[in-house]
Amino acid sequence: MVDIATRVWNHKWKIDPIVRSLIDTDFYKLLMCQSVFRNHPDTQVTFSLINRTKTIRLAELVDEGELREQLDHIRSLRLTRGESTWLRGNTFYGKRQMFTSAFMTWFENLQLPPYHLEKKDGQYELTFEGTWPEVMLWEIPALAVIMELRSRAVLKDMGKFELQVLYARAMTKLWGKIEQLQPIDDLRVADFGTRRRHSYLWQDWCVQAMMEGLGGNFTGTSNCRIAMMREIEAIGTNAHELPMVYAALADSDQALRQSPYDVLADWHEEHDGNLRIILPDTYGTKGFLEGAPDWLAGWTGIRVDSGDPATGAETAINWWKSRGEDPQQKLVIFSDGLDVDKIISLQQQFAGRCRVSFGWGTMLTNDFKGLVANDALAPFSLVCKAIAANGSPTVKLSDNPNKAMGPAEEIARYKRVFGVGEQVEMEVVV
Amino acid sequence: MVDIATRVWNHKWKIDPIVRSLIDTDFYKLLMCQSVFRNHPDTQVTFSLINRTKTIRLAELVDEGELREQLDHIRSLRLTRGESTWLRGNTFYGKRQMFTSAFMTWFENLQLPPYHLEKKDGQYELTFEGTWPEVMLWEIPALAVIMELRSRAVLKDMGKFELQVLYARAMTKLWGKIEQLQPIDDLRVADFGTRRRHSYLWQDWCVQAMMEGLGGNFTGTSNCRIAMMREIEAIGTNAHELPMVYAALADSDQALRQSPYDVLADWHEEHDGNLRIILPDTYGTKGFLEGAPDWLAGWTGIRVDSGDPATGAETAINWWKSRGEDPQQKLVIFSDGLDVDKIISLQQQFAGRCRVSFGWGTMLTNDFKGLVANDALAPFSLVCKAIAANGSPTVKLSDNPNKAMGPAEEIARYKRVFGVGEQVEMEVVV
Repeated sequence: MVDIATRVWNHKWKIDPIVRSLIDTDFYKLLMCQSVFRNHPDTQVTFSLINRTKTIRLAELVDEGELREQLDHIRSLRLTRGESTWLRGNTFYGKRQMFTSAFMTWFENLQLPPYHLEKKDGQYELTFEGTWPEVMLWEIPALAVIMELRSRAVLKDMGKFELQVLYARAMTKLWGKIEQLQPIDDLRVADFGTRRRHSYLWQDWCVQAMMEGLGGNFTGTSNCRIAMMREIEAIGTNAHELPMVYAALADSDQALRQSPYDVLADWHEEHDGNLRIILPDTYGTKGFLEGAPDWLAGWTGIRVDSGDPATGAETAINWWKSRGEDPQQKLVIFSDGLDVDKIISLQQQFAGRCRVSFGWGTMLTNDFKGLVANDALAPFSLVCKAIAANGSPTVKLSDNPNKAMGPAEEIARYKRVFGVGEQVEMEVVV
Repeated sequence: MVDIATRVWNHKWKIDPIVRSLIDTDFYKLLMCQSVFRNHPDTQVTFSLINRTKTIRLAELVDEGELREQLDHIRSLRLTRGESTWLRGNTFYGKRQMFTSAFMTWFENLQLPPYHLEKKDGQYELTFEGTWPEVMLWEIPALAVIMELRSRAVLKDMGKFELQVLYARAMTKLWGKIEQLQPIDDLRVADFGTRRRHSYLWQDWCVQAMMEGLGGNFTGTSNCRIAMMREIEAIGTNAHELPMVYAALADSDQALRQSPYDVLADWHEEHDGNLRIILPDTYGTKGFLEGAPDWLAGWTGIRVDSGDPATGAETAINWWKSRGEDPQQKLVIFSDGLDVDKIISLQQQFAGRCRVSFGWGTMLTNDFKGLVANDALAPFSLVCKAIAANGSPTVKLSDNPNKAMGPAEEIARYKRVFGVGEQVEMEVVV
């Protein structure tokens, strides 16, 4: 029996919206947003889309009109009552009332600010300007929209059964990975794949497959909407955005050198336990840890997000030892370019030496590599970053020079200030 | 939006019926039934289930109560008005009114006769007795029910996503085969997989995938219900059942020797064109063709259903040449244990030398080999055959002694009467 009402209702949509909720975003964006709302509510920032895979000519693949419709739709979204209730009433990282009433009131009234869209050299220039707490919430939906429009562009000429087989192949591929992970008893892996997912529905499928396939070893998802719908943990702490903007706001080299620690000092006041996770690589992990104040060594863990992950973890373990901490009590979160083989080898290498957890992103929610002609659905490296704060450009160095961003002269200055020496280049696939 | 009525309706089913239509059967059963209805309406026959794969202990896998419920449900089925309209109004093999009004009236009033079910040595003894036109229509639904109950028994402890991945893997597998067949320009392949399908829904999926993937090179399905629903050709001609029963009814060695030709003489009166297909292997292809009357050489083609298929086709080509016929005008239908590699190699070997077509069965609609633990869904060799007619046992020899059936002394007699010498044994997988 066809539900006639559903069918007629579906015909009334002018578009098939990709992002349908303001909490279809990563949990750490909301945590950071609350921190920014408290500490830097008036800072003016510019966020910009950056396609690091230049061979993917997005402006030739994705129709501008469709992109505008999707972005306009996101601007029409408001936090719903149920979403607000979930954010106010849920337990996050074991804590109730993670979000203050002041922040929730602000969020309940939020409309995302306007966007600026232009085509240039086969790419889209998509930027967002305004106050930091508002603009920062564009990052994930902007990425998700472009990723999914690119998927749709590739899929639009395929037959019905060809499509079904495509998803069958993708399911087969992911389930094979899950089966590889099943024998690992003490695995802790979460979905970090919202931003570069193939599509919302596919991410939701992946999460449910992980729930069934890995049980309690699947610790949750970074996606708040999916965490809410599937009644699982929302996962995430903080990101490079905070030190990048804090650094851009610094008015001297000394203030610049101090800025990454200022970020974590603010965070220290707001959070404890498993939310005290250091992201040390923004301006080089080595220098960051050497110059870190002792109270940081008391934090729960470190997230390794660039450079060779095993090296990063060893560096963290040695640092904890040098500060008199027991690494076995500490948490190392791997979150950079993971796939199942890397997860397995890192787990083997570090389980027992420290607590280990994985934030599995693009290769969880968008591994369509090899599934269509010309590999037209292979994931690629798209980011949306703060590029300026109060008129000053931002800079990121990271532990992989291929991930560095910012004006060349500023990169040079940051390298000098933070004492960053030789770095090993690593290919950035996703 | 959930369609509440549908949901409530679904809850009212006491069982999930496997066979839901009297035309969820092979087209050739209906053609043969009409012939039997005309020529042998009162012949008493016994049909029996035979599991040639003894390692599959069906009575331990499939619950007797569930099996009875399914068989009882089949007995509750009647030809529906739409099905009757389709049989009366459709064009089959280019011909309107294939089914006579007398036959249709009989069919519209048909209820399948009772069954007899017992367990023995881990197998089911399932037999059907009564007049030939009624009993013969049990064959396909009985096989389909047991095949699908076996599938359900294996699937019942699997999780939701595990199940989805199972079907994803099966879809991936079949589509890979379809992609292998796509480059063959003049391929002609039909679905012959009803009797040993994994399930009805899966067969229906396979048919639709073939329609989309192969276009006009997919010539149709043997399944009448699916042919009706998908508006494609119903395919099939005649089977071993006819010569086996005719032979059992013969009252002398001379009549026995003549019986396979009597079958085709009756058929010759009723059908022309592409329905004049010889199935020569019931009592040995070689002897059959050598002794065949000349009018048989004028028939359209031959179906090769046992023995080495290439040898069978060469035998047919040489026979046509010896009778002054042009093999390039003749049709060879391969239908025994086909999978995609065999289809491709036979096509390469015979395309251009004769018209070639394929009836692809079990490995189209039930290739779940290797997809679950212990290969518990691998297809196996289940048949449902006429074992007696008017009190005499039936015998089949075929071109593969592993497919022979009947009492040993009768097999010896048939071999003598039909002059069958040495035969090459070939493994029967499906």
